[in-house]
Amino acid sequence: MKIGIVGGGAIGLLIAAYLSNEYEVTVYTRRSAQAQRLMNEGLRFVKRGETKRVSLQAMAFAEANINDDLVFITVKQYDIATIINHRNLFDQVKTVVFLQNGMGHIKLLSPLMEKNIIVGIVEHGALKHDDRTVEHTGIGKIVLASLYGTFGQAVNLSAKSISDFPFEFANNWENVLVKKLIVNAAINPLTALLRIKNGDLLKVKPYYEMMKLLFSEFKQVLPIEDEQKAWEHIVSVCQKTAENYSSMLMDISQNRKTEIDAILGYVLEKGKELGITLPLSQFLFYAIKGLEEGGTKNE
Amino acid sequence: MKIGIVGGGAIGLLIAAYLSNEYEVTVYTRRSAQAQRLMNEGLRFVKRGETKRVSLQAMAFAEANINDDLVFITVKQYDIATIINHRNLFDQVKTVVFLQNGMGHIKLLSPLMEKNIIVGIVEHGALKHDDRTVEHTGIGKIVLASLYGTFGQAVNLSAKSISDFPFEFANNWENVLVKKLIVNAAINPLTALLRIKNGDLLKVKPYYEMMKLLFSEFKQVLPIEDEQKAWEHIVSVCQKTAENYSSMLMDISQNRKTEIDAILGYVLEKGKELGITLPLSQFLFYAIKGLEEGGTKNE
Repeated sequence: MKIGIVGGGAIGLLIAAYLSNEYEVTVYTRRSAQAQRLMNEGLRFVKRGETKRVSLQAMAFAEANINDDLVFITVKQYDIATIINHRNLFDQVKTVVFLQNGMGHIKLLSPLMEKNIIVGIVEHGALKHDDRTVEHTGIGKIVLASLYGTFGQAVNLSAKSISDFPFEFANNWENVLVKKLIVNAAINPLTALLRIKNGDLLKVKPYYEMMKLLFSEFKQVLPIEDEQKAWEHIVSVCQKTAENYSSMLMDISQNRKTEIDAILGYVLEKGKELGITLPLSQFLFYAIKGLEEGGTKNE
Repeated sequence: MKIGIVGGGAIGLLIAAYLSNEYEVTVYTRRSAQAQRLMNEGLRFVKRGETKRVSLQAMAFAEANINDDLVFITVKQYDIATIINHRNLFDQVKTVVFLQNGMGHIKLLSPLMEKNIIVGIVEHGALKHDDRTVEHTGIGKIVLASLYGTFGQAVNLSAKSISDFPFEFANNWENVLVKKLIVNAAINPLTALLRIKNGDLLKVKPYYEMMKLLFSEFKQVLPIEDEQKAWEHIVSVCQKTAENYSSMLMDISQNRKTEIDAILGYVLEKGKELGITLPLSQFLFYAIKGLEEGGTKNE
């Protein structure tokens, strides 16, 4: 089976590293320089202090004519519109997996409804050190659910069980994405604003109270079946990742665009649809937008 | 006229510096070491780069038997309860001026209703460099209004007009305090949380939106006559103090207790009284409490 991976970020490289053992993998990058480097030097894969070189194919996305059996789209949510505008590049592909945070990208996927469209979430920790180096920092799983059509060629992913890199198949895509969204909405903006580790949201009592206030606000507009369980899931993620800095905090401190639109932006849209005002989500949304503008004078 | 000043902080020392030219001034400090130093070496007063030595009396508050004609209380709002507990120390004083931020101290002053009790706000900028040195960093004014009784001996303050140090007399103490409270509530917690200069609340659009959201929330529970004018006053203070760091940001960055209880704590109390929920004020209140706990890991 031929597998394509669009996006040469941490998640794209991580999937490439694991699937290259079993399948013929091509990584489609935004910059041709990165593709060149991956082709020439191979992918460097770091896990538990050990380094391995992985050979694979790579090319610039814009120059590609993708005809793999299964394609993963691993770009950030804010780049999905660009991918959809170039959908002719993967016209021949039957099955596409979208691995974005948030839920804002779902409505952009309707032009692809003739294909098998799968959405999923990544619970692995991965760190991209440079254009050809990725480190697997936290073993988790990838959960997939079908949005349009069937699982198509993705079912093969369960056939070969790859150690430390399991795939799980779920029925209800909304449940899968919401579960990740509420974690991102509760943890990411707060930790980015307060510049704290995930675990401090439990350790510092007033921060815990802030997270509770925020959750009780946004839960009003998200399809959450069991509120108590959802809250406990948030708390358990804080515990498990207590020593980590959230991706949003990392983005802010490295002056990168954050995924705030995909996360609280989506929550605010839902609020508007339902006619429910969400002052805290709005306030935090502005705070992160301000920090993105480099409004911080935190020399 | 003999003037007593309780509190050897920036405001206490600033008032001492100006009034010592005209009156017999005694500063009552918390620590006797500070009083000793003021007695022995005099007060150092810095203004526009020039330094002047001012002679005055000083002693520890707890050892004092105050019998001045007019006493200023310049301690922080959170120390007012202690002052009231020691009110026997100024039993003979007829007229007392309280210069605290917020409004939380008002209800603590009822045991003094037999005296002339004046409340006021300070619009000067002052910086305490050490126990005997204060710098006048921004020329403003002190506005006074009577809470109980009359202005008493305070009327004399208007007789001698002191250059760069005017006193203004107002009718309605609530208007005077609310005007300062809304400025403090809008600017201080936000700048402390975002670690920005006051002017950034206007310069960075999303921060401006945050301040607007916050104002439209807390204005519901404060006695504001003209909302448009109140908002314009906040904006004009941001402009005038654009390059300044708010006192709350300074307190946070120097690991000092902030005045959040006197400011947003008061707003939240009002909300409770009126049965109006104030999610943003509550959220920001927790944020500052968390920062006070040193919850920030902003190494």
